[in-house]
Amino acid sequence: MSTRKLLVDVHTHVYLPRYASFLRARAVAPKIFSRPVPGEPGAREDRLVILDNEPSGGRPIGPQYWDRPEKLAFMDKHGIDVSVVSSANPWLDFLSAPEANTLAKELNDDLEGFCSSSPELDSAPSGSGPSIKRLYGLGLLPLVPEASPSDVLKTITQISSLPHLKGVIMGTQGLGRGLDDEELEPVWGEIERNGLVVFLHPHYGVPSSMWGERDNGHVLPLALGFPFETTIAITRMILAGVLDKFPSLKIMLAHSGGALPALSSRLASCIDHDPVVASRLKHNARYYLGQLYFDAVAYGSEELGFGKLRALGSSRMLFGTDHPFFPPLKGTDKWRSVTENLAAINGVAGWGDKEREAVCGGNALRIFNLA
Amino acid sequence: MSTRKLLVDVHTHVYLPRYASFLRARAVAPKIFSRPVPGEPGAREDRLVILDNEPSGGRPIGPQYWDRPEKLAFMDKHGIDVSVVSSANPWLDFLSAPEANTLAKELNDDLEGFCSSSPELDSAPSGSGPSIKRLYGLGLLPLVPEASPSDVLKTITQISSLPHLKGVIMGTQGLGRGLDDEELEPVWGEIERNGLVVFLHPHYGVPSSMWGERDNGHVLPLALGFPFETTIAITRMILAGVLDKFPSLKIMLAHSGGALPALSSRLASCIDHDPVVASRLKHNARYYLGQLYFDAVAYGSEELGFGKLRALGSSRMLFGTDHPFFPPLKGTDKWRSVTENLAAINGVAGWGDKEREAVCGGNALRIFNLA
Repeated sequence: MSTRKLLVDVHTHVYLPRYASFLRARAVAPKIFSRPVPGEPGAREDRLVILDNEPSGGRPIGPQYWDRPEKLAFMDKHGIDVSVVSSANPWLDFLSAPEANTLAKELNDDLEGFCSSSPELDSAPSGSGPSIKRLYGLGLLPLVPEASPSDVLKTITQISSLPHLKGVIMGTQGLGRGLDDEELEPVWGEIERNGLVVFLHPHYGVPSSMWGERDNGHVLPLALGFPFETTIAITRMILAGVLDKFPSLKIMLAHSGGALPALSSRLASCIDHDPVVASRLKHNARYYLGQLYFDAVAYGSEELGFGKLRALGSSRMLFGTDHPFFPPLKGTDKWRSVTENLAAINGVAGWGDKEREAVCGGNALRIFNLA
Repeated sequence: MSTRKLLVDVHTHVYLPRYASFLRARAVAPKIFSRPVPGEPGAREDRLVILDNEPSGGRPIGPQYWDRPEKLAFMDKHGIDVSVVSSANPWLDFLSAPEANTLAKELNDDLEGFCSSSPELDSAPSGSGPSIKRLYGLGLLPLVPEASPSDVLKTITQISSLPHLKGVIMGTQGLGRGLDDEELEPVWGEIERNGLVVFLHPHYGVPSSMWGERDNGHVLPLALGFPFETTIAITRMILAGVLDKFPSLKIMLAHSGGALPALSSRLASCIDHDPVVASRLKHNARYYLGQLYFDAVAYGSEELGFGKLRALGSSRMLFGTDHPFFPPLKGTDKWRSVTENLAAINGVAGWGDKEREAVCGGNALRIFNLA
């Protein structure tokens, strides 16, 4: 396939207007609220609180979270051709099953509209393929406690019927018992059959009792809690045999898989030494890394070049930015969260143009069936 | 310095006889108890339960945990010349301050005896240095809630006076508020002044609510919970400025630093983007990797060769086994926990004989002042 070299962002979030309105109407987290700006009489600011115990009164939020022109302007500023947009956490996790079921379907339709009416790329890839839009999306499933698996299956059918939605984003709660719940097996099967990508993304981190008493802002939950949660979720799926049973399921792990690559040999050793699980899996734990996809949101060449990831080839890593999170603290021309992740890709020892182009966009075109 | 090539195990545990007796007398975890062997009428076995909610009735325990001949036989079987032995978790964490204070001093004296009367190496390193014993030790501090820092300082003085004790092993609770507690600053200062090594080792993992409902044996707490706990503890120390204030403090992280190396660029990015901590530290978060030591207990060459660790040189990694944990499930000639960690060292791309010898023993001789 001959394609022009595209920069595709696979980790970029939105709170769709319907969802943002929903959060504004809430009195408890997750919520969006307005408050006076400290030190600026008369001025007000919107704040987002995702978790009840969040430090520092949540974080600033603004139109970059919901306005499509803001997303496109960010893309233009950083040379991003295509974004595969997903709702940001906490998705529908906090809703009742009927609420989640209704809102999932509405938000999936909204996201299809957000993407389908986006501009086409100025110059399509060479060759005779269909034109490419600037925006594609990952839908939401009503994965909440008490949800009926058949409602989840129906939503997968809906997403599969929406041409600009290419997968789903999900957190780690599943139906309330995590992603190693046997009741989810039909869900994995249906996602696999439809060729959708699962973008597995953290929200809860680890209990805040782990962070101690000092005020470290959001650093510990974001830098450690997030990747730990992802690592635990995918490891529980591996131990439950999900990757054995659904070998074609395309799972993309947020933040380069968290700590999974670095701990996969320890995991393999612990499995080999534990009588409860030693004979349960088809493969050595390290094998499953080669069955997964990883965004390239790790902020360092060493992380991307880490032996085992490199041994997978560069074919399973995909550029991402985590926009609109991690805005610059001071006004700068470009966002460091973009430039650092691009520099990381460019700096991996042993990667040439071919590998860098694959990670920057070629892999996304293929895995998300964009061209 | 010209030394013969030694294999030194820096991560090897013991429950000293006094401590094992203490655990036998307890009715709640941590405890050692005896039970009938399932399916073998009349036979009994000793079990160790470290945590109250531990799965599968704890784990088998036997003389390899307390008998010095067993330790030496294990070393002989695997070609290990010297072991730097430390008490296994949960140390004194569960005791009252007076109990911990008394038992720490007794166990430090016991460990000095355990090591000082061990055989000398058959052939000492060439050169005129003093002879080397087979066993050295890491002492215990009474780090429990309500402990008086001055009692902790006195125990550091005791350890420094015992010639075969070369450092301390500690968990992550400190005086009950973690290792980023300001009250610990005199402790770090005194440890640094005495040139002792701090072996930072996990015990608690993360809350078991993270592991879900499936029975995965000990895999999740050991493979993930342990390294996550270590990573959180050292990150909290970094954020509290402990590594800035005590730049000569020698901290060795269990299990190759857990997830810290793989997440250090993410940590740096999260710090840079957080107004609460962005200007607090002297260095970029990645810098502190170069101020730490890492055991080479990661079970894979890729983990040991991981870019950033390699960039530190091989001078900060040290061979270890985690004996007597991770015994083979079936009788084998050698323990895989040893052979895999040695194979990992031998397999790191870019390491020659010099680097391998440093990791296998040279670094330990230097860092623990053994020769």
